[in-house]
Amino acid sequence: MDYEYSQMFLESRTKPFHKFLSLFQKRTDSAHTAHSEFGRRKDQLQSRASPSSPMKPTDMAKEGTETTEETEHMIEKNGAKETETVLSAGDAKEMRAVILSGFGGLNKLRVTKKAMPEPQEGEVKIRVKACGLNFLDLMVRQGNIDSPPKTPLVPGFECSGIVEAMGENTKGFEIGDRVVAFVNYNAWAEVVCTPLDYVYNMPDDMTFPEAAAFSMNFVAAYMMLFEVANLREGMSVLVHSAGGGVGQAVAQLCSTIPSVTVFGTASSFKHEAIKDSVTHLFDRNIDYVQEVKKISPEGVDIVLDCLSGENTGKGLGLLRPLGTYILYGSSNMVTGETKSFFSLAKSWWQVEKVNPIKLYEENKVIAGFSLLNLLFKQGRCGQVKTVVEKLFSLYNQKKIKPVVDSLWALEEVKEAMQRIHDRGNIGKLILDVEKSPTPLMASDSTETSEAGEEEEEHEGDNDNKERMPFIQ
Amino acid sequence: MDYEYSQMFLESRTKPFHKFLSLFQKRTDSAHTAHSEFGRRKDQLQSRASPSSPMKPTDMAKEGTETTEETEHMIEKNGAKETETVLSAGDAKEMRAVILSGFGGLNKLRVTKKAMPEPQEGEVKIRVKACGLNFLDLMVRQGNIDSPPKTPLVPGFECSGIVEAMGENTKGFEIGDRVVAFVNYNAWAEVVCTPLDYVYNMPDDMTFPEAAAFSMNFVAAYMMLFEVANLREGMSVLVHSAGGGVGQAVAQLCSTIPSVTVFGTASSFKHEAIKDSVTHLFDRNIDYVQEVKKISPEGVDIVLDCLSGENTGKGLGLLRPLGTYILYGSSNMVTGETKSFFSLAKSWWQVEKVNPIKLYEENKVIAGFSLLNLLFKQGRCGQVKTVVEKLFSLYNQKKIKPVVDSLWALEEVKEAMQRIHDRGNIGKLILDVEKSPTPLMASDSTETSEAGEEEEEHEGDNDNKERMPFIQ
Repeated sequence: MDYEYSQMFLESRTKPFHKFLSLFQKRTDSAHTAHSEFGRRKDQLQSRASPSSPMKPTDMAKEGTETTEETEHMIEKNGAKETETVLSAGDAKEMRAVILSGFGGLNKLRVTKKAMPEPQEGEVKIRVKACGLNFLDLMVRQGNIDSPPKTPLVPGFECSGIVEAMGENTKGFEIGDRVVAFVNYNAWAEVVCTPLDYVYNMPDDMTFPEAAAFSMNFVAAYMMLFEVANLREGMSVLVHSAGGGVGQAVAQLCSTIPSVTVFGTASSFKHEAIKDSVTHLFDRNIDYVQEVKKISPEGVDIVLDCLSGENTGKGLGLLRPLGTYILYGSSNMVTGETKSFFSLAKSWWQVEKVNPIKLYEENKVIAGFSLLNLLFKQGRCGQVKTVVEKLFSLYNQKKIKPVVDSLWALEEVKEAMQRIHDRGNIGKLILDVEKSPTPLMASDSTETSEAGEEEEEHEGDNDNKERMPFIQ
Repeated sequence: MDYEYSQMFLESRTKPFHKFLSLFQKRTDSAHTAHSEFGRRKDQLQSRASPSSPMKPTDMAKEGTETTEETEHMIEKNGAKETETVLSAGDAKEMRAVILSGFGGLNKLRVTKKAMPEPQEGEVKIRVKACGLNFLDLMVRQGNIDSPPKTPLVPGFECSGIVEAMGENTKGFEIGDRVVAFVNYNAWAEVVCTPLDYVYNMPDDMTFPEAAAFSMNFVAAYMMLFEVANLREGMSVLVHSAGGGVGQAVAQLCSTIPSVTVFGTASSFKHEAIKDSVTHLFDRNIDYVQEVKKISPEGVDIVLDCLSGENTGKGLGLLRPLGTYILYGSSNMVTGETKSFFSLAKSWWQVEKVNPIKLYEENKVIAGFSLLNLLFKQGRCGQVKTVVEKLFSLYNQKKIKPVVDSLWALEEVKEAMQRIHDRGNIGKLILDVEKSPTPLMASDSTETSEAGEEEEEHEGDNDNKERMPFIQ
């Protein structure tokens, strides 16, 4: 019945495949990255990621506190020294940064030295402490985004740190301010320059990893729930990847409104860790449509979808009247579900089209949400700033708290990416700029490699196992 | 540029035309109703409608007051008598009603006697005073709606009147209560029975015509602006048919929020009458996209569209980031713009499909809104009741006031329909059940008929010119 529904509601388009092909030629290497290795390697990588991460998922709450204390301690103790370090660092001509040399697999990433950026008029120069790693960064790595920029580039859209300098005639921050910022690429580096409008003073109690975990995920979750979908008392929300950064932000924000029911999908191994944040949890591999309908035959008020593809039809089918479906990502284009060039092509071009007349008959709403486009293409900094302020207020009231999955050194960016790729994370992955790489155990290099099942990207991955030559 | 934009954004579908044909066969006669007569006849009908209507558009405010006084006078003076009349009328076995004998032109409508309905358990029996006439009623007449019901039927979805009886075990209203009600067809009659959930006590100061003008238009406008689109201070709204019932409701509701800019399209002759209710008015025949962009290059926050077809692409193109396009009707399928079977077919099936990925990239929202489906198919009476209460509160605070275009006897339903069809109205057309038909002048019958330009429907229209045999 649901299949029929979605067939009726939506249109698939197959014709302009040649159009896609020409567009795709420049991204060929990226097509090979979405491969079957991920399913196989998941367990291995999970077990590898945990020790190198500073905490196990089940220790999250405890670990969060420890991190806070540690950071505060450092700030108190080294207050004067910090400024000195900053000043001397400011004289340096170079900085470390993660570089994406071309679109493709993990082997396209490395840490290198780059010229130190200097702030232009209207910009703030930030000594970076922590950066957020998002699923979107994987899409960027593969070139699976609209109008991808030229490579080489430094990835990363968000960071937290300390203001080190301001551009000429630029006011609004003091040197030494603890800030969180959006950056249009270039966040994964020791130093970042970004326009004033994208920089916000952090709450005093917030740690740098928390701040970097906070910005994109909570702002996106807040705007989707309250500005696009108008979440109110008694409503119900379905969120995919409930254990991820956005998923956990959605769950927490829903808990600030009375009587909101949250349905979530997540890999089974995460259920124990996140079960308290979500009303009803389903395994991501089962038919969530049927499961939701068993509990709520009328469906739900809000569907947040980061999967796209056939999930659009399912999501629309699950909406109650006046309900809102929001597409905020297309992670199916990156995961192992897209196994080949052709299935990737299919998932991109055959995204189901929606008939407005059907929306009218069914009283339904479909929306798309891209925070980065809103910020960097559509100039909505003012609106985002207001949202950030509301969120900081909720944080100060202890109503929300970013969940940090794990901290990684810049040199560990590949493992971190693999972990998010395999959906091993609970909450946000953070690149901790001051962290040293955790040495790999000898067993790792053999466990992740199986004869006959290697991919091009996999070979590049051998860099991982040596690691030290990363800094060139 | 806009054309390119909409081409990029949307998909037209041409394939399943055979599907449409088979669907269309049962509606063939309706295809001939949407004809070129309307453009030509507009001026004639406008001049005809005005004298038969109790007021000219420019006298609206004055007339509104007079109607109020008249109604109040009647109620005060005939308080006791009214109940008597009601009781004796309650014994009658028959009532007058407008009947639609089949889908098609105006000739399918007539007034006839029908068996008096009696309220079932949970229903309220209402002695009708006034009924609302909507563009949707024209779509029903032509059978241009999703799953049209069987004919013959009594059209009409809203009325105001006095409670005459209640079904068994049914509580909530007293006999004599002044109420406004939604009805799933059957409103255009002297007596109506409808479930309790669709009946609301009217504010004391509201006249029956105002109440009938109020229900669908204001509820739809309110829900679209505040529940689907989340209208807030400083936003901008584009509404088509700004002079119509919904258009005027939208304009008034926008004025309850500070600094809302309303862009409206309307026929030029209405501009003088409605110019104070809308910030920027454009002629409905000009390119409103260019006009809006001249004033607001960024576009608007909310587009309310009752036209469909190519306007969907235009409307989406005009949205600012996070803006919402709402389709709440498809009047292009009924008007003279759809000149033949084939262009009607085209406008129905080639409604542009929307690509969710594009919504994501552009941060846009597309919604459909159908109040009738919400009420009668989707069981959202509770939510609608809350909205009705909020609106009555705004009415009592004198922040909103329904605009009544003109009152018509049941026997004048064809002229009334023609007037809304020709977009001659400013505000709402009301069928006043107690009104006697205004005799036509001799000149009318010749003026509306031009040799060689008649349509099938037109012939049926000759009924109009005799009128008296309407009651059989």
